[in-house]
Amino acid sequence: MKNASLLRPSLQDFVREISQGNRVVLAQAITLIESKLDEDRALAEQLIEKLLPATGHSVRLAITGVPGVGKSTFIETFGKYLTSLSKKIAILTIDPSSTKTKGSILGDKTRMEELGRDPLAFIRPTAAGDTLGGVADRTREAILLCEAAGFEIIIIETVGVGQSETAVRNMVDFFLLLMLAGAGDELQGIKKGIMEMADGVVITKADGENVKRANQACSDFQYALHLFSESDSKWKSEVLTSSSLEKRGIKETWDLIEKYVQFTKHNLYFDRQRKQQDLIWFRESIQQLLIQHLSKSEAVHAKMKLLEEQIMSKSVLPSRAAKEIIRDFLSA
Amino acid sequence: MKNASLLRPSLQDFVREISQGNRVVLAQAITLIESKLDEDRALAEQLIEKLLPATGHSVRLAITGVPGVGKSTFIETFGKYLTSLSKKIAILTIDPSSTKTKGSILGDKTRMEELGRDPLAFIRPTAAGDTLGGVADRTREAILLCEAAGFEIIIIETVGVGQSETAVRNMVDFFLLLMLAGAGDELQGIKKGIMEMADGVVITKADGENVKRANQACSDFQYALHLFSESDSKWKSEVLTSSSLEKRGIKETWDLIEKYVQFTKHNLYFDRQRKQQDLIWFRESIQQLLIQHLSKSEAVHAKMKLLEEQIMSKSVLPSRAAKEIIRDFLSA
Repeated sequence: MKNASLLRPSLQDFVREISQGNRVVLAQAITLIESKLDEDRALAEQLIEKLLPATGHSVRLAITGVPGVGKSTFIETFGKYLTSLSKKIAILTIDPSSTKTKGSILGDKTRMEELGRDPLAFIRPTAAGDTLGGVADRTREAILLCEAAGFEIIIIETVGVGQSETAVRNMVDFFLLLMLAGAGDELQGIKKGIMEMADGVVITKADGENVKRANQACSDFQYALHLFSESDSKWKSEVLTSSSLEKRGIKETWDLIEKYVQFTKHNLYFDRQRKQQDLIWFRESIQQLLIQHLSKSEAVHAKMKLLEEQIMSKSVLPSRAAKEIIRDFLSA
Repeated sequence: MKNASLLRPSLQDFVREISQGNRVVLAQAITLIESKLDEDRALAEQLIEKLLPATGHSVRLAITGVPGVGKSTFIETFGKYLTSLSKKIAILTIDPSSTKTKGSILGDKTRMEELGRDPLAFIRPTAAGDTLGGVADRTREAILLCEAAGFEIIIIETVGVGQSETAVRNMVDFFLLLMLAGAGDELQGIKKGIMEMADGVVITKADGENVKRANQACSDFQYALHLFSESDSKWKSEVLTSSSLEKRGIKETWDLIEKYVQFTKHNLYFDRQRKQQDLIWFRESIQQLLIQHLSKSEAVHAKMKLLEEQIMSKSVLPSRAAKEIIRDFLSA
């Protein structure tokens, strides 16, 4: 414990080094926010609050798609393009199933090898094995740290399995969905609801024999997206094709995102969404903490199990069972 | 107060009369569950719990669509068809905007005049001006009362404005979306997300000059629905055309619902979804009650406003602000 504290920068050191873009200290800070020790959490929160005024000046971007869609390759190519424009980019990977598939995250990191060596890029997988709510909070905090360290584009990479995407949608400006070309009209396991969160869709692997099918998929998806009514942003989602192999559609993807940013900054949606997201974070945290406190009580937990069984056997009304739980909890 | 109690049946009377299908007492019981008086709530909960063993034996059906889609006319025609099969049906109307548009609910009721006189049909709008959570709870309870009174098909009618639909999705077996024929590829204001909750889509007003466009819309929507991956039920949503005028597509709609019920009962999804919905009700009630208790405290409420402002001005981290709220709340 003593040693760890000695090795660890002080609060002032953390603030100064991160503000100066020190990537080693940034990485240490992200480790700090992932810690479950109360002492570390307290320091992490102080740190982020000190840095808050320096946050917010990036484009926050989610990139998702099912395994096999070529996500790592796309992000590597896309990232290299951004750094070639002298943009500082940070890539944070979320994989809610990563306790089971740790290998794949390491694999991703290896596959993004070239980008990993780029001085303008910072790649960081999130800590595995946490609750979804926990992962979401840590990711939000990591975004803020990266912004304070001067990164201009933050990419949140998620695996399109349906759970984390909704959480991630609430922490980014632009949601990009990668889809496979030529997979017919089956959405390749993309959960209902993910497609309509997308501000943009990129059909990957649109090269060689795939080009024709990719173009067909492109217009199919464009049509399907048009079936949905306008979102609050008034932005009309667009579909592109890309080839990481032939480096096509990469510039176009970034152009689309810039167009979106301009469009939503102009109609003030950009800031409104950011503020909304902060309030969602606040309210979700309150709910999480309440539920945490609730389930910490063993008596309440046992009672909940009992009531759930009674609900299943139709001997108690769910809304009345809830009242019992709350009464027990608040009088405890 | 005394008078009201005198006029009102006792708990035993309520239970007996509802079990015997007494519609006047059923209507009184629904008024009771809508009451905000603690005394009434307590009686209502006792009543529903007494009736619980007699509930669950209906097909619960949501029918939604934007104003102008011909919902009332469809429901009237559909309802008449069901009663012609000697089915006992109950229609509960939810309109979250009904404080503003009370006239439209009364209008609906008037328009369903013929069905309203049918001895096999029971029509009831929900109380207006409540919170969405409140309306949802009351509707769930009203469903149970109707089931206990022997109704075999419960239709929840909502206005497709996007908010109530998600809540309603969690209380029915089958979600039917009505769409207008010939409105091109604009989803007529249907909120993103509603279409993919649908187990079935019916294109209305497919008569006269509309037939061709309706058929086109039918295949367009069928295609769009196929873009989504399979839902948990393994059921593939279907699209039909109908004409209330020419009484076409009405039998087919009921056949589709019966096919769904058979299919999901066979693969056990039907019961699983019901149980899941009861647990969702339980958990949502717990969360609602916690938030209610939280916001009842004036000190907490004032603090929340203050913290929200601080969050907006980037001087406090949302997750830390949440901790302050919880600390204040639990120590109060």
